[in-house]
Amino acid sequence: MDKQTLLDTSQRISPYIHSTPIFTSQLLDEMADAKLFFKCENFQKMGAFKMRGAVNAILQLTAAQQERGVVTHSSGNFAQALALAAKNLNVPAYIVMPDNAPKVKKDAVLGYGGIITECKSTIAAREEAAAKIVAKKGATFIHPSNDLNVILGNATVGMELLNAHPDLDMIVTPVGGGGLVAGTALASHIFGTDCKVIGGEPKVADDAFRSLISGQIETNMAPNTIADGLRTNLGDINFPIIQQYVDHIICVEEAEIIQAMRLLWERLKIVVEPSSAVAFAAVLKNKAYFKDKLVGIILSGGNVDLENIKFS
Amino acid sequence: MDKQTLLDTSQRISPYIHSTPIFTSQLLDEMADAKLFFKCENFQKMGAFKMRGAVNAILQLTAAQQERGVVTHSSGNFAQALALAAKNLNVPAYIVMPDNAPKVKKDAVLGYGGIITECKSTIAAREEAAAKIVAKKGATFIHPSNDLNVILGNATVGMELLNAHPDLDMIVTPVGGGGLVAGTALASHIFGTDCKVIGGEPKVADDAFRSLISGQIETNMAPNTIADGLRTNLGDINFPIIQQYVDHIICVEEAEIIQAMRLLWERLKIVVEPSSAVAFAAVLKNKAYFKDKLVGIILSGGNVDLENIKFS
Repeated sequence: MDKQTLLDTSQRISPYIHSTPIFTSQLLDEMADAKLFFKCENFQKMGAFKMRGAVNAILQLTAAQQERGVVTHSSGNFAQALALAAKNLNVPAYIVMPDNAPKVKKDAVLGYGGIITECKSTIAAREEAAAKIVAKKGATFIHPSNDLNVILGNATVGMELLNAHPDLDMIVTPVGGGGLVAGTALASHIFGTDCKVIGGEPKVADDAFRSLISGQIETNMAPNTIADGLRTNLGDINFPIIQQYVDHIICVEEAEIIQAMRLLWERLKIVVEPSSAVAFAAVLKNKAYFKDKLVGIILSGGNVDLENIKFS
Repeated sequence: MDKQTLLDTSQRISPYIHSTPIFTSQLLDEMADAKLFFKCENFQKMGAFKMRGAVNAILQLTAAQQERGVVTHSSGNFAQALALAAKNLNVPAYIVMPDNAPKVKKDAVLGYGGIITECKSTIAAREEAAAKIVAKKGATFIHPSNDLNVILGNATVGMELLNAHPDLDMIVTPVGGGGLVAGTALASHIFGTDCKVIGGEPKVADDAFRSLISGQIETNMAPNTIADGLRTNLGDINFPIIQQYVDHIICVEEAEIIQAMRLLWERLKIVVEPSSAVAFAAVLKNKAYFKDKLVGIILSGGNVDLENIKFS
C-alpha cells in the first residue's frame, strides 16, 4: 500500500463524506492522564465511519457495474451506509437482512432507498441470499469489512486525524470485523511518525485478540456484548494487515464499555454508540500505558436506540 | 446599548469561553422546511451558555470586589457557571442551594470549587441566605438572568451566530428567566439585518408569553415542565429589553419538547437538555411561519441526568 493510493482514496470520497471534527476535553484528559483527541465519526453521514468505505467501494466499480448495483448482508451500520452511498451515487443497493432485524434498522435502510431482501438469521442463509442477488441482478457483492476498497475508505479517518495532529503517539479504534482498525493501521503506517495503532475489543467478543495470539482467524460464538457492532469476526483481507501493523489489542468488560460511553455522553455532550466507547474504555483501562501520550481515539458511530439505552 | 459595548464584552470574555460550533442537518431542514443553524452551547464550558454571563459579570467587578467574592442562588446551570467562572478567575464563589437540590448538582458545584450554603427551598429563604453572605463577606450578588452584565455576556451567543451567518431571518431561543432571549435580542438588534428574535417557552411555564400580553411581569405557579431550566420568571432588567426587541413567544407542549429533544439527539448526535429543545420545538410547531427562512436556533445547554432521561 503506498501513500498515493491513500491520497487518491481521500480525494475520491471527499465530495460524499464529512471531514468530521476532533473533540477534546480537559476533564477527560485529566481522568486519563493523557492528551486525547476524539475523532467524531458519530457526526459522519448516516452516523458512522462506514459511509467512507461504502462510498469508496462503489466509486471503484465500473459504470456498468454501478448500473447493475451493489449487494451486502448486514443488519448494522454498513447496511445503511451502503444504501445511502448508493443512493447518493445513483446506484441500486440490495441489502440482505435477517428477518429478525429490528424494525428501526429496516426502516433506516428503506429510508436511504435500499432494497431489502429478508432471510433467516444464519450466516449461511445470508450468504445464500446475497449470492442469489449477485447471480440474478449481476450486482457486485461488497463485504462490510473484509474488502480492500472498504478498508481504504476507512483509512481516511486516521488520515484526517494525523493530518490535524501529525505527532500522535497512538490511535485507538474499536475492533469488530477488522475493517476500521486495518484501515487506521495503514493510515498510521504511512502518515504517522512512529504512531502505534491499538484496538479495543469487548472481552466477550475477543476474537481479534485471540487471532493475533494464535496467528489464525478465530471466531466468536454468539457473543452477547452491548457493543453490537463488534460481534463480527476478522477476514482474510484485513487480518494480514492487522497482523503486520496493529500493535496490540486491549479487551474491556461490558461495565467498562458502559462507563466509558456514559463519560462521552456526559462530558463531550455527544451521542455515541456502545461500540464507539470501547476504544476509550481501553485507554481508561490501561492508563499507565497511555500516560502523558498524545492519543487519537476513533468514535466510530452514533446510531443508538434511545429507548433501549440504559446507564444504570 | 451600543455596538461597542457588545464588542467589548465579546473581547473581554473570549479567553474564558468557547466559541461554540454551529451544526446543520439536511434531514432536520427537510423536516422543518427551513434552513436551520443550531448554535451548540451544550459544548460551552460547564455545558451551558450561562458560562458567558457569569464570566462577564465577574470581570466587570473591581479587583477589591473580586477579592471578596460573588454569590448567587440557583440550583441549576448558573450555580455551576458562576462557580467555574470564579474558579478560573481566582475569585471565591458562594452558592446558595436549596437543601433538596439533587446531590449531582451539589457535587458539580463543589467540583468547580464553589462554596455551598444550604437553605430551605423557598425563594424567601434563598434570598435571605444570599443577603447574609453579602453582608458578612462583602461578596457581590449576581443574579442568574436579571443582571445587565449577565445579559451582555449572553448576547455573545447571538453575536457569534450572526457573525457566521449575517443573513439570518430569525433567531429562536428558549425563555426561562429571560437573560438569554434578552441578550440575543440585543445582539440581533445591533448585528442582525432585520433579524427577528423569537422565544420558545413551555406551555405550562408560559409566564413570558403572558407578560408580553399584559405588559407586566407575570409569574409561574410551581410549573412542572421537563424543561427544568425554564421554570423561572422574568426580571425588571431583562423584561423591558424583551418588550422592546423580542418579536413574539411560541408556547410548546411537554410532548413536543421531548420529541424535539429526541430529534436533536438522534439526528445531530448531540446531548442537549430539555430546555434546549424548546426553541427547536417552537420552530417545528409553527412551520408555516419559518418556511424557507434562515433560522438560528440556540441550543442552550447539555447538562442532563442520563439516568432519569426518558424518551417514551
